[in-house]
Amino acid sequence: MTQRTEISSLGEFGLIRHLTDSIVLKNESTLKGVGDDAAVLNYAGKQILVTTDLLLEGIHFDLTYTPLKHIGYKAAIVNFSDIYAMNGKPKQMTVSIGISKRFCVEDLDEMYNGLRIACDNYGVDIIGGDTSASLTGLTLSITCIGEAEKDKIVYRNGAKETDLICVSGDLGAAYMGLQLLEREKKVFAGEKDFSPDFGGKEYLLERQLRPEARRDVIHMLADAGIVPTSMMDISDGLSSELLHICRESQVGCRIYEEHIPIDFQTASMAEQFNMNLITAALNGGEDYELLFTVPLTAHEKISALKGIRSIGYITKASQGSYLVGRDGGEVKLIAQGWQ
Amino acid sequence: MTQRTEISSLGEFGLIRHLTDSIVLKNESTLKGVGDDAAVLNYAGKQILVTTDLLLEGIHFDLTYTPLKHIGYKAAIVNFSDIYAMNGKPKQMTVSIGISKRFCVEDLDEMYNGLRIACDNYGVDIIGGDTSASLTGLTLSITCIGEAEKDKIVYRNGAKETDLICVSGDLGAAYMGLQLLEREKKVFAGEKDFSPDFGGKEYLLERQLRPEARRDVIHMLADAGIVPTSMMDISDGLSSELLHICRESQVGCRIYEEHIPIDFQTASMAEQFNMNLITAALNGGEDYELLFTVPLTAHEKISALKGIRSIGYITKASQGSYLVGRDGGEVKLIAQGWQ
Repeated sequence: MTQRTEISSLGEFGLIRHLTDSIVLKNESTLKGVGDDAAVLNYAGKQILVTTDLLLEGIHFDLTYTPLKHIGYKAAIVNFSDIYAMNGKPKQMTVSIGISKRFCVEDLDEMYNGLRIACDNYGVDIIGGDTSASLTGLTLSITCIGEAEKDKIVYRNGAKETDLICVSGDLGAAYMGLQLLEREKKVFAGEKDFSPDFGGKEYLLERQLRPEARRDVIHMLADAGIVPTSMMDISDGLSSELLHICRESQVGCRIYEEHIPIDFQTASMAEQFNMNLITAALNGGEDYELLFTVPLTAHEKISALKGIRSIGYITKASQGSYLVGRDGGEVKLIAQGWQ
Repeated sequence: MTQRTEISSLGEFGLIRHLTDSIVLKNESTLKGVGDDAAVLNYAGKQILVTTDLLLEGIHFDLTYTPLKHIGYKAAIVNFSDIYAMNGKPKQMTVSIGISKRFCVEDLDEMYNGLRIACDNYGVDIIGGDTSASLTGLTLSITCIGEAEKDKIVYRNGAKETDLICVSGDLGAAYMGLQLLEREKKVFAGEKDFSPDFGGKEYLLERQLRPEARRDVIHMLADAGIVPTSMMDISDGLSSELLHICRESQVGCRIYEEHIPIDFQTASMAEQFNMNLITAALNGGEDYELLFTVPLTAHEKISALKGIRSIGYITKASQGSYLVGRDGGEVKLIAQGWQ
């Protein structure tokens, strides 16, 4: 009798742990394997970062409202963001594409164009890849290689009690952009030309369709002489990422609702949709902002940096991980991934 | 008016050239980009190889007759083979998986098991990856990183006039194994238990379902003090690969039908199927043998190596690329890729 355990019973992160927990690293050149934004290799004393992302049509993007150029651009950015989140610099990238007959050469040109603009903007070389026919939708798999100065790599596991928790930019806008696009898709269902009026909501769309990686934040921190104790990028949502840092660092945390940075457009959209704004900011995902911790002694330096907000502090693991509401009440943080 | 150029009008290799021809490399650490079995990076004087492969259900594998464990094993091997084909050693690997609801945790365990056995056999670390839900079939994307001694990397572009053309092992068996599996699939169509009798054809199935990468050949060549002038692995078929070497090296070639190594089981199966044996050996693909060229002066050394056959020689480009038949007639070599 064969057993059948549904993948949904483990969830995304449970599945990754299940598959990779017992991996024993064999090579000296492998410094860090599964479990951070990128793997870390050591070749001749140089530290190399490797990250990879798989993007599937219908799961990660919807061609109804996403131009292929944007898909290419975003796919590259998502990977660069992982390298920056290790305090490294992206340098090379491979691009594998699976394509069905629905697509023509001009479609691929458009997607590749997006990839190349991203690579030009961030100084990354496309060094190889694979192209394949696909029976179904569009598949895009990217692996990015970066470099980091020795001993400057920032992992998820270095957060210490009393450290400040910081985020760059603002949260929840990419998620609201997605909600907006999904709503308009329903409204325009069946119509050939999809061109709704998005006036006044440009920021939300830009955050969803054309995100940037926070290279500027990495430079700003370096210039200020701040080396974070832990860092990751916010792709799955603040809650989820913060819980990763807490688990890897064996600590707890308190973050404050009133300090979570949210753009005006995000707030007004949440109201229109009658959605809980703080839930969108905590669990929305795809913001590609940086979440990091710094020693309490860096407080003044951090306060002086534009676009960086301290949202709380690290505690002992035994104190758990909580959001402190505006009324002072505490709500336990919960991670969300795909099921 | 938007133009629509079908991808089939370019073919696989034409498409790759179309997308990548105008890439300008920006980073010092990028030594070689698109266009060989693997890209070559230079970090602190150490040379690093990167290769990637995308495997899609229904295109690269058929779950009717391929156990998931074998899919995992083969997916890893295909990548290792690309690294060996550069005269390097595979060291690290990322694994991205897209999975639909059809699959359960035990299925993934089986596939991962195949990946891990391959990694254990070849000394490779799994360092990361991505898992995602998929709306359709199983997607597997692997990127492999290897290392090579400086100045020992063998590219496709070094073949010189009068060089000997050599191949390891034998050709066409993997393709015949696939034909056999496809035939039995039709015979058993609709029946629940797929368990035909493959007695006497084990070698063909093994070549199709559980290929190995020719690390042993790389070691043998090193021990014999032979550095090939050009090399690649035979994944798309001898004709196609040889034409790659000829184009990249700007040379022509003559190979001899009578020297092409073919196993007895392959020959007998071709007869049963009433197929042209030499076509299967030239265009079959998935053999994962090594195709390489050596200077004529290495002739004696090569003859002494077990399992290596000289099949012809390199000519001036102006003399074209031909197969010389048993009757002395010449047939132009033609490449095949997917359309």
